[in-house]
Amino acid sequence: MKKNRPLILVTNDDGINAPGIRLLISIAKQFGRVIVAAPDSAQSAKSHSITIEGTLSYKKIEKTEQYAEYAISGTPVDCVKLAIHELTSEKPDLILSGINHGTNTSASLIYSGTMAAAIEGSMNGIHSVGFSVCHYDTYLDFAFTKPYIEKIITKVLENGLGQGTSLNVNFPVVEAEPIKGVKICRTAVGFWAEEFIPANHPHNKPVFWLSGGFTNLEPDAEDTDDFAIQSNYVSVTPVKVDFTDYKSIKQLKNWNL
Amino acid sequence: MKKNRPLILVTNDDGINAPGIRLLISIAKQFGRVIVAAPDSAQSAKSHSITIEGTLSYKKIEKTEQYAEYAISGTPVDCVKLAIHELTSEKPDLILSGINHGTNTSASLIYSGTMAAAIEGSMNGIHSVGFSVCHYDTYLDFAFTKPYIEKIITKVLENGLGQGTSLNVNFPVVEAEPIKGVKICRTAVGFWAEEFIPANHPHNKPVFWLSGGFTNLEPDAEDTDDFAIQSNYVSVTPVKVDFTDYKSIKQLKNWNL
Repeated sequence: MKKNRPLILVTNDDGINAPGIRLLISIAKQFGRVIVAAPDSAQSAKSHSITIEGTLSYKKIEKTEQYAEYAISGTPVDCVKLAIHELTSEKPDLILSGINHGTNTSASLIYSGTMAAAIEGSMNGIHSVGFSVCHYDTYLDFAFTKPYIEKIITKVLENGLGQGTSLNVNFPVVEAEPIKGVKICRTAVGFWAEEFIPANHPHNKPVFWLSGGFTNLEPDAEDTDDFAIQSNYVSVTPVKVDFTDYKSIKQLKNWNL
Repeated sequence: MKKNRPLILVTNDDGINAPGIRLLISIAKQFGRVIVAAPDSAQSAKSHSITIEGTLSYKKIEKTEQYAEYAISGTPVDCVKLAIHELTSEKPDLILSGINHGTNTSASLIYSGTMAAAIEGSMNGIHSVGFSVCHYDTYLDFAFTKPYIEKIITKVLENGLGQGTSLNVNFPVVEAEPIKGVKICRTAVGFWAEEFIPANHPHNKPVFWLSGGFTNLEPDAEDTDDFAIQSNYVSVTPVKVDFTDYKSIKQLKNWNL
């Protein structure tokens, strides 16, 4: 591979044959050398899970100077780990994850395999961006996202991101009207209320499909990602993981454990 | 079930037959009515993943007034969701997850199924605590953790936790010397550097075991969970999920996307 073009790692959670990653690969090729390391099957809602109870394998689909593609048996985070530790000796300049078919704003973020791959990238010091379209139509055409993705990639390659920071980009549904623009957001506070739909097991075993509905606890908060996509803007949310609840530390110290 | 005793939901990620959850169940029974909803197989490092590509099922092991136990086909977070939406009509007063066989301090937290179950509980407004022992000995005796777990449960039932807050409790290795006490901590900044160990596939396919080593980026920070367990203290870290990187919002606004 030529050294003068950036090395871009592309992954996703919908699987290596999903239309979203195919568009993302074609965009990535405009900006540099590309290595694709994506799950060989759908891995939606796998969050930050990794494969440690079993083995991981990969299949090489293609390998040239400018382009390599591998289908991997594991999760999106497995793909990032395997790619940067086993499939290339060169640290990628950029990780792109997606384009996910479905929303990753608000509470959906914690379940997202798409964003987990980007977060794993940022934990390894690699600028990382996850892209999602807030739409579930099976035959969705992702093409409308292209100019926005190109601009975001350009800006990230120019400016970089902070240490440990990744971007969570969500595109609104675009049936009725054109996208109004891009908003920099925070993650809306919300939750998923589950519903378990009986799967009609032939011998009446208790078997269910997990379903449910999302509740935004701050639907009027204009600085949030969910508000942005509801208002037909592209949301760009900087993401950084720190699980500590600093505000509770003092209270807990008073418990005298 | 009698209404006057708290309802405690117990889960884990090592699977329903792991010794850690058996001890945790016996402790929980001292404090209230208990419902166990735990994975029917090992689900380590499943993070916040949920089962949406396939179905979920459960098997009822036991059900009395004071005690119910279900083995579930999914992940730890699936177990919490199925329990609170399908297996009981009463909102649990407390969720206990573990006792995990392995460390969940620092960067391990994001991969942890044990803590994901606790975090899912806290997202549903239920006081939740995850317990882990920083030790990988197959025949580990978890009994030394009992008085600490009892005290923590007592305090959580008395005082509650903040909205959206859960606790990440880690026990040090206790071979050489007794535990010195309990420290309230923040999560240490660190990362896992992966290693992929070839799995010796009979036809030489590229098949690997994921392994690796943890690096603590702030080994001298005395207020961190990892420092506490290295110093033979039990670490108690309040956990709350907010993925937004607020510091980067202003920088990104200057990009004029």
